[in-house]
Order: sequence, then structure tokens, then C-alpha cells
Amino acid sequence: MPVVVVDVMPKPEILDPQGKAVQGALPRLGFAGVSDVRQGKRFELTVEEVTDEVLAQVAKMAETLLSNPVIENFTVRVETTSEIVAGANA
Amino acid sequence: MPVVVVDVMPKPEILDPQGKAVQGALPRLGFAGVSDVRQGKRFELTVEEVTDEVLAQVAKMAETLLSNPVIENFTVRVETTSEIVAGANA
Repeated sequence: MPVVVVDVMPKPEILDPQGKAVQGALPRLGFAGVSDVRQGKRFELTVEEVTDEVLAQVAKMAETLLSNPVIENFTVRVETTSEIVAGANA
Repeated sequence: MPVVVVDVMPKPEILDPQGKAVQGALPRLGFAGVSDVRQGKRFELTVEEVTDEVLAQVAKMAETLLSNPVIENFTVRVETTSEIVAGANA
């Protein structure tokens, strides 16, 4: 069954302590070259079929339940795997 | 500057109480038609440039810092906005 993905990220002007913690840990682990890290949430919703109506419903869910619109932005998209360049699915 | 996205999701065989909580809340809010919800994390890493070396570095970060490989899978990809069908960026 198709999967609709909702990504919820802190707005750019909102402080993101989790992201900053990750960013601070990277050099200590020997990783360089990352100038910023933002951490958010990813929801995978399994639906019967992908129609405009379903996507509108999911956008409504994202707005009312999955995100806090005061401090977070969200995006809704249909899952694709084409652009994945690396991963672990062991 | 380019953004590399790391998505970290609980493995399919791992219980996901956060996702189940969202799934349970949806009918109570009047939303139907979602048969499963999984909740994970999304990291946006700002890098100088996207090269194979940088992507390999990010995959290493994902494996060692951003995910717990025992219970989570991750994917690394370069940010694209083409497939977004809805969102709020207010």
C-alpha cells in the first residue's frame, strides 16, 4: 500500500537544541564539514490509495496533529526511493 | 549551500509506540483511512558541497551518531523539493 510521508521541521528562526547538540558532537567524533544541523520528525502514513482528497486529508492531519504550526513547518509527499544515495536496511 | 537529508526510521519489526499513539489519535480527530503510522527522525545537514566523499562521510555519521543500527534503519539523500505535494512554510 502507498506510503505518504510528512516531514516536520523546526522553523528556520526557531532555536533547535537537538540539532545543535548533534552539530557539536560531530567534530568530537572526527567529522568535519557540516556547517549546520536541524533535527525534525518524519511520519510515514500508510494509506489505501493516493488521491488528491487523501493528500488534502494528510495535510490537515499534519497541521492539526503532527506539527505545531507556531514553531514547525511541514511538507507532505508521496514516498519515493529513487533519490536515496546510501542507507542501511539490515 | 546544499542540504543532505538523513531519515532515521524504526525497523519494521520494532514496535513504534509513538507511531501507534498517532494512529490511535487519528480516528478520534475524525480522520479515517490511515492503516499504519511510523514515526522517525529527520536530520538536515548543511554541507559545503555534495561529493561522493561527503555522502560517504554523512552515511558514517548516520550509522554512528544519528541512528541506533540495532533498532533503526537510515537513508541518506540529497534534498529535493520536486515531489512535495503540500506543506506549510509560513
